[in-house]
Amino acid sequence: MEQTAAAPPVTFETHPDEYKHWKLSFNGPIATLSMDVREDAGLRPDYRLKLNSYDLGVDIELADAIQRIRFEHPEVHAVVLNSLKERIFCAGANIFMLGSSSHGFKVNFCKFTNETRLAIEDASATSGIKFLASLNGICAGGGYELALACDEIFLVDDGNSAVSLPETPLLGVLPGTGGLTRVTDKRRVRRDLADFFCTVAEGVRGRRAVEWRFVDAVYPTSRFKDEVARRAKELAEQSDRPSNGPGILLGPLNPKVTDDTAIYGFVTLSIDRARRTAEITIKAPHDPQAGAPEEIVKAGDQFWPLRAFREFDDVLLRLRLNEPEIGTIVVRTAGDADAVLAVDKTLDTHRNHWAVREIIHFIKRTLKRMDLTSRSFFAHIEPGSAFAGTLFELALASDRAYMLDDPKRPNTVALSAMNGGSYPMSNGITRLQTRFLGEPAKVDQVLSAGEPFAARDALDAGLVFSAPDDLDWDDEVRLVIEERVALSPDALTGMEANLRFAGPETMETKIFGRLTAWQNWIFQRPNAVGEHGALKVYGREGRPEFDWRRC
Amino acid sequence: MEQTAAAPPVTFETHPDEYKHWKLSFNGPIATLSMDVREDAGLRPDYRLKLNSYDLGVDIELADAIQRIRFEHPEVHAVVLNSLKERIFCAGANIFMLGSSSHGFKVNFCKFTNETRLAIEDASATSGIKFLASLNGICAGGGYELALACDEIFLVDDGNSAVSLPETPLLGVLPGTGGLTRVTDKRRVRRDLADFFCTVAEGVRGRRAVEWRFVDAVYPTSRFKDEVARRAKELAEQSDRPSNGPGILLGPLNPKVTDDTAIYGFVTLSIDRARRTAEITIKAPHDPQAGAPEEIVKAGDQFWPLRAFREFDDVLLRLRLNEPEIGTIVVRTAGDADAVLAVDKTLDTHRNHWAVREIIHFIKRTLKRMDLTSRSFFAHIEPGSAFAGTLFELALASDRAYMLDDPKRPNTVALSAMNGGSYPMSNGITRLQTRFLGEPAKVDQVLSAGEPFAARDALDAGLVFSAPDDLDWDDEVRLVIEERVALSPDALTGMEANLRFAGPETMETKIFGRLTAWQNWIFQRPNAVGEHGALKVYGREGRPEFDWRRC
Repeated sequence: MEQTAAAPPVTFETHPDEYKHWKLSFNGPIATLSMDVREDAGLRPDYRLKLNSYDLGVDIELADAIQRIRFEHPEVHAVVLNSLKERIFCAGANIFMLGSSSHGFKVNFCKFTNETRLAIEDASATSGIKFLASLNGICAGGGYELALACDEIFLVDDGNSAVSLPETPLLGVLPGTGGLTRVTDKRRVRRDLADFFCTVAEGVRGRRAVEWRFVDAVYPTSRFKDEVARRAKELAEQSDRPSNGPGILLGPLNPKVTDDTAIYGFVTLSIDRARRTAEITIKAPHDPQAGAPEEIVKAGDQFWPLRAFREFDDVLLRLRLNEPEIGTIVVRTAGDADAVLAVDKTLDTHRNHWAVREIIHFIKRTLKRMDLTSRSFFAHIEPGSAFAGTLFELALASDRAYMLDDPKRPNTVALSAMNGGSYPMSNGITRLQTRFLGEPAKVDQVLSAGEPFAARDALDAGLVFSAPDDLDWDDEVRLVIEERVALSPDALTGMEANLRFAGPETMETKIFGRLTAWQNWIFQRPNAVGEHGALKVYGREGRPEFDWRRC
Repeated sequence: MEQTAAAPPVTFETHPDEYKHWKLSFNGPIATLSMDVREDAGLRPDYRLKLNSYDLGVDIELADAIQRIRFEHPEVHAVVLNSLKERIFCAGANIFMLGSSSHGFKVNFCKFTNETRLAIEDASATSGIKFLASLNGICAGGGYELALACDEIFLVDDGNSAVSLPETPLLGVLPGTGGLTRVTDKRRVRRDLADFFCTVAEGVRGRRAVEWRFVDAVYPTSRFKDEVARRAKELAEQSDRPSNGPGILLGPLNPKVTDDTAIYGFVTLSIDRARRTAEITIKAPHDPQAGAPEEIVKAGDQFWPLRAFREFDDVLLRLRLNEPEIGTIVVRTAGDADAVLAVDKTLDTHRNHWAVREIIHFIKRTLKRMDLTSRSFFAHIEPGSAFAGTLFELALASDRAYMLDDPKRPNTVALSAMNGGSYPMSNGITRLQTRFLGEPAKVDQVLSAGEPFAARDALDAGLVFSAPDDLDWDDEVRLVIEERVALSPDALTGMEANLRFAGPETMETKIFGRLTAWQNWIFQRPNAVGEHGALKVYGREGRPEFDWRRC
C-alpha cells in the first residue's frame, strides 16, 4: 500500500465570506478574482502553500467563485484573474502536496482542477463571460495552465516575469491540468516551440512569449494595469448578459450527513460499505415549479433542477474524493415523471433567458462530471421512478440501465426536448447521439416518439440494456452488482474511460483521455514517485535518479 | 527494478519460408492467412503459446505477411484470416508472456501489434485489399482484436464458438490492442452492450453477436466454409488492384550489425551508449532511379524510397525493442537533395499505379512509426544534407530541427508535392498542417515556394526550430542533447505523446492516445502486476487480491 499522508474528508461547499485564498471584487460589469493563497491554510498541515501554489482547497474556492459569478452576478460580463502577491501570479499545484498524496488523490485532484478550468471555458463559450488572465509575475506550471483556461493572457514585461511549464524538467511529470493540450490545441503553438517551452524550467517571456503564441500581449509595468483594465472593458462589451441583477444566490445545501448516508432535499446517497456499493436517488419535484423566467429567478436556488443537480454534483464529488472504495453506484429516481417533463418544458421554452441558460449549462456540467467519475453506474428503473427528460440523462450516463418489466405495475421512461441537444457530453455530441452512433436514425425516432416507453418498448428502442420481468428482476440486478464489484477497479476505470466516449474527440476529451491517462501513468512510475523519483526528491538534497529505459 | 525475464534482442525481418506460426496460401485473387501457432516456438522459452495465443514473434510474422501480400502479390484482392487449429481461432496475447515481461516490453509489444492491425486497415482503406476474419471457434481477447481489424467478421454458429474480450474480468487489464476503441468507434456497438461484453469472460455468440454488431454474420458449421468463400470472392471483386503480377519481392535487408552500429545500404544507425544517444543517417539515392512504373517494379526492392524506408523502419523497431536506454536520436540526411526531389516527382506523377501507391503508403506508415516511437528526435540540418521533399518529413517528424546558418557553406531544405498530403499522420492531417495549426495559410505558402529554403528563410518560414550560425552551432546542438538526455524518460514519453498530435483525433490516435495510455497505466498498477495482481496470478492457484480504491 502507498505510504502517504492520510487525506481528511473534503467538503466542497464554500462561500466568498469563507474564502482563505481568493478575493472576489466587483466593479460594474467586471469582476476581479484575485489569488492570494494563505501559506498556512492548506487542506493538510504537512505542506505550506508558498508562492501562490495551490491544493484542492484553493481550487474548491476557485470553482465556487466561478459558479457564483455565473449565478449571483448576471451583471458581470468579464472576469480578470490576477494575483495579490507581488511579482508572483501562481507557482502551480503545490509540489509537496503532490509528493505526499496517494495516487488516487493526485488523480482526483487533477480531475477536479481540470473540471474547474473547463468551467471557465464553458462560462466563456456559453454564458457571455470572458476571462482575462493578468500575469503580474511568475506564472509557472498549474499557474500557467490556469491562465491558459482564460480567453486571453496578458503578461507584464519587466525583464523577469515569464510563463512556464516546468513540470517535465523539474518534476518528471506532465503539465496535466490541460497544459500540454491547450498549448497545442487552444493556443496552437507550433510543436517544436512547445517542445522547447515544456523542457526549459524558465519558460519564455517578453516579445518571444507573444510571437510564439504563449500569451496574447506583454506590456511594461508602467502600462500594465491600464492595458488590463482597457481590455477587460472591451471583453465585457461583447457580452449578452443582463446589465443588472437580481441574480440567483446559491445558499448552502445543508445535507444531513451520517457515516453512510447523505440526505439532501431531493437527493439521497446511501452507502453499503460491506458490498462496496452505494445508491443515489434523485427525486422529482413534488411542488409546482416556476414557469416564467422572473419566477425562476425568484425561486432561485430552490428551483428544482438547480437544487437537485447542485445536490447531485456534491454527491459525486463526495464519492470521488472521500469514498474511493465505493466502486459501484446504483442510480434511482423517484416521484412524478410528469413534473420533470413540465420543468423540462420550462427550461426548453426559456433557454435564452440568462438564468435558465445558466441552469441548463450547470446540469450539463454535472452530467459531464458523472461521465468522468470513475465508478460504475447502474440505473435501476422501477415503478415509481421518474426517468424522464433531464432525469433520463442519468440512465443514459450510466454504464447500463435495467428496467423492470412487470405488466401489473406501470413503469415507463420518457424523453423530452432537453434530451435533444441541451446536455452534450465532453465529446461534443449528446448521450443519445453517442449511444446510437451505429444507428443514427434512432436518435430522432426516440425523440419524436411523443409518449413514454414501457419496459419492452424501451428495450426494443435501445434505450435500456435489459428489461427483466418481476420473476427475474431481483436475481438479475443483484448478480450484476455482485459481478461488477468483484472486478479490478483499475481495469474498470480504464475500460469505462474508453467505452463512455465513443465518437468524436474534442479538446476536452483529449485532456481527460490522452493527457490525463498519460499523467496518471507517470504518476505511478518510479521515476516520478519512487524513493528517488523526481516528484519525491524535489526540494530535498540531491537529484532524482532515473531508470533510463524508455517505454 | 522489475523482476522479469530478460528479453533477448528481437529481429524484425522474416520470410514466409521461415514462418513458424502462419501459413500463407494463394488462390487467384484470394490469399488465406492461417494462424497455426507453434506452442514451443515463442520468443522466450519460459512460456508456451497454447491455443493459438501469440507473442511478438507471432506478430512479426503477421506483419511480414501483410506487407508481402501488398508488395509481392498485386493479384491478391482479398485476404481470409483463419486458423488451422480446430475450434480455436485465437486466444489472444499469451498471458504468461505478458505476466513475465517488463513494463517497457509490454508497452512496445502492444504498440507493434497495434501498428500491425492498423496496417491491415490501411491495406483495406488504401490498397484495395479487403480482409475477412473467418472465426471457426474460440476468438478471445487479442484474437477478437485481430478480427476487429478486418473489414468483416464471420463466426461459426455451433452453439459454442464466441467472440470475447475477457481482459477485464480475467486479467484485470484492458483489451489494449484497439479492442475497446474498435468496438465503440469502428463497429459502433452501443455502450451498454459493449460494457456487458467487456465484463463477461464468455463473450457473445450466435445471433446475439450479430444483433449487437460484434460480428457481421454467423453460419452453421455445415455452411460456414462456403459462405466465407462466397464473401471473400465478393470482397475481392471490389478491388482496383491488377489482376496479375509481377509484384515486388522484398529481399532481406542484410545490415552489417555490430554492438553499436547497424549499417544498411542507405541508412546508418550509430549508438553512443555513454551518452544514451544515437544518430540515424539516411542517404539520398546516388544512382539514377527508375522513372516509369514498369521500371519501378523492375527495380523492385532496390528502388531507393522503398529500400531506404524499409531500412529506416527496421532501425526504428530495433531501437524501440532492443535499445530502451537510448532515449535521444539525432536524425541526419546526406547526399543529393535533387535526387530526392526527382524521386518525389516520380512518386507524385505515378501515384495511382499500384506499386507506387504501395511505396507511398509504406513511407507513410514508417513515418507514423517514427511519430509513435517514444524517443526524442532532433533533426540536424547541415551542409551536405538532403532534407528535401519526402526526406524533409523526417525533420517535420522530429521534435525539433536545427539548421546550420553558415553563409560560406550552402545549406538548404526543400519541399515537394509529396509534403502536401501523401503522408498524413495518425491524426489524419499532414505534418505541415499539424505544424501550422495556428497559421494554416502557411501550409500553402511553404508548399508553393518553388525553391529551396536557406537557413534564415527556413527559420522565418517556421520550418525549423533554430538556425545557429557556425560560431554557435556546435555548442548549441551539443547542449540541447545534453539537456534532453537528463530529463525523466517517462515525462518525455508522455509529453511527446501529447505535443506530437495536435489537432484532430481519429480512431488511430484514440487507440494510441486514450486506450494505450490507460492500458500502460493499468500495466503499472499493483492490481495487475503486483504479487497478487490479476495478471500475475492468472493460471496459478488462488484469486487476485485487489486494492479496491478507485482512482
